Amino acid sequence: MTSLLHVDSSATDAGDSISRQLTAGFAQVWRKLHGADGYRYRDLAADPVSLVSPAFVSLGLRVERQGAVPLAKVAGMTETAAEEREWALTLPLIEEMLAADTVLLGVPMYNFSVPASLKAWIDRITFPGAFLASGTGERLLRRTRVVVVTARGGCYAPGTPREGFDFQTPYLRAYFTDLGVSEENLHFVHAEMTRAGDVPQLARFKPLAADSLTAAWTAVTELAARPVGGRAAARSR
Amino acid sequence: MTSLLHVDSSATDAGDSISRQLTAGFAQVWRKLHGADGYRYRDLAADPVSLVSPAFVSLGLRVERQGAVPLAKVAGMTETAAEEREWALTLPLIEEMLAADTVLLGVPMYNFSVPASLKAWIDRITFPGAFLASGTGERLLRRTRVVVVTARGGCYAPGTPREGFDFQTPYLRAYFTDLGVSEENLHFVHAEMTRAGDVPQLARFKPLAADSLTAAWTAVTELAARPVGGRAAARSR
Repeated sequence: MTSLLHVDSSATDAGDSISRQLTAGFAQVWRKLHGADGYRYRDLAADPVSLVSPAFVSLGLRVERQGAVPLAKVAGMTETAAEEREWALTLPLIEEMLAADTVLLGVPMYNFSVPASLKAWIDRITFPGAFLASGTGERLLRRTRVVVVTARGGCYAPGTPREGFDFQTPYLRAYFTDLGVSEENLHFVHAEMTRAGDVPQLARFKPLAADSLTAAWTAVTELAARPVGGRAAARSR
Repeated sequence: MTSLLHVDSSATDAGDSISRQLTAGFAQVWRKLHGADGYRYRDLAADPVSLVSPAFVSLGLRVERQGAVPLAKVAGMTETAAEEREWALTLPLIEEMLAADTVLLGVPMYNFSVPASLKAWIDRITFPGAFLASGTGERLLRRTRVVVVTARGGCYAPGTPREGFDFQTPYLRAYFTDLGVSEENLHFVHAEMTRAGDVPQLARFKPLAADSLTAAWTAVTELAARPVGGRAAARSR
């Protein structure tokens, strides 16, 4: 069975959020093809991930100094109730990431970067060694497909005047490849100029916004329908 | 009277956090020179800024469509209790930013970017028009000095292999200049290779870490002692 982890991070509801609308479209196509059993949803705005605490850091340092520690052994290394609590908040997020064949992220650009809600999730799942096999150091996410659907008020594509202000897409590319996701499994879909209807100065870009949104819908439906090498198949190699 | 807003964002306590130690050093020198009256402290880890909600966005859109709205009039534009609550959470953060002659930020690098705690603060203070004069569109932060003290586990300086993974310093530079801070008033102090004592693979960089820390101490004490054009003087021009 193939599996999808669908994560949204927009502060606004589906009625107003283009990233939520696009990821919901992806999920709908995906569920039509694969059923609902492998589907998992996480809303980082409605159900925020708490900030990492000193106990998260102290546990992480202890694990890192030990070298490669299997996830199942981390709980046994906690030394305080605070560390236990931090690990109880962290492990389920890591496990659902590892269990997914596809991770679908809805990411609006907030102030040129990712929303704080998404950064809190990133700061928590990035626990030392969590995405490396403890015996071999193998990258556990190398066959995981990551689909990032962004919504951006303006246009930040290469060659545009605001290219240098994009700390959303280049950031997530660097983060996920460092985490072990393969370049060829990392996909970005952009809906740009989403503020063209709101901001008078951007009104002339409405056609560009409409084209970008159409292209984004085509891309998410195509990606959702594309067959992905299932995790089970990958593991049996 | 000159004023300092000191903001920390590290998840760890002062005993473990190099960014907290350095900003505390800055604040100590500053208070020795200027006294405690103009000093204000905010700890984004101990007292987190809540994520922005749909009501924050709806209020922001209404204000933005109106054009330039003085801060004092925004409360009168709220339409729901949720919008009132959001504004009550937001206005004090904006006001303390506007009141400061110097804003001092302690920013560890977490996963190549700023901590989620700092991003939550950024996402909330960046309210439409908050840092522009409503009559003239003048940038209210153009004379504000912003001192960013970073701590980074590795080395991300230009020319190093990890330069492309720095989404902390270039990001904050883009964000604050866009917000209206002048390039010449934006200062960065870096303590690099702070993990050299923890991570065996980085052990050979311990001298580099020590040199970087020494340079950072020199820079913060020098910057803290440097005379700054007070806000009162600036306003009287």
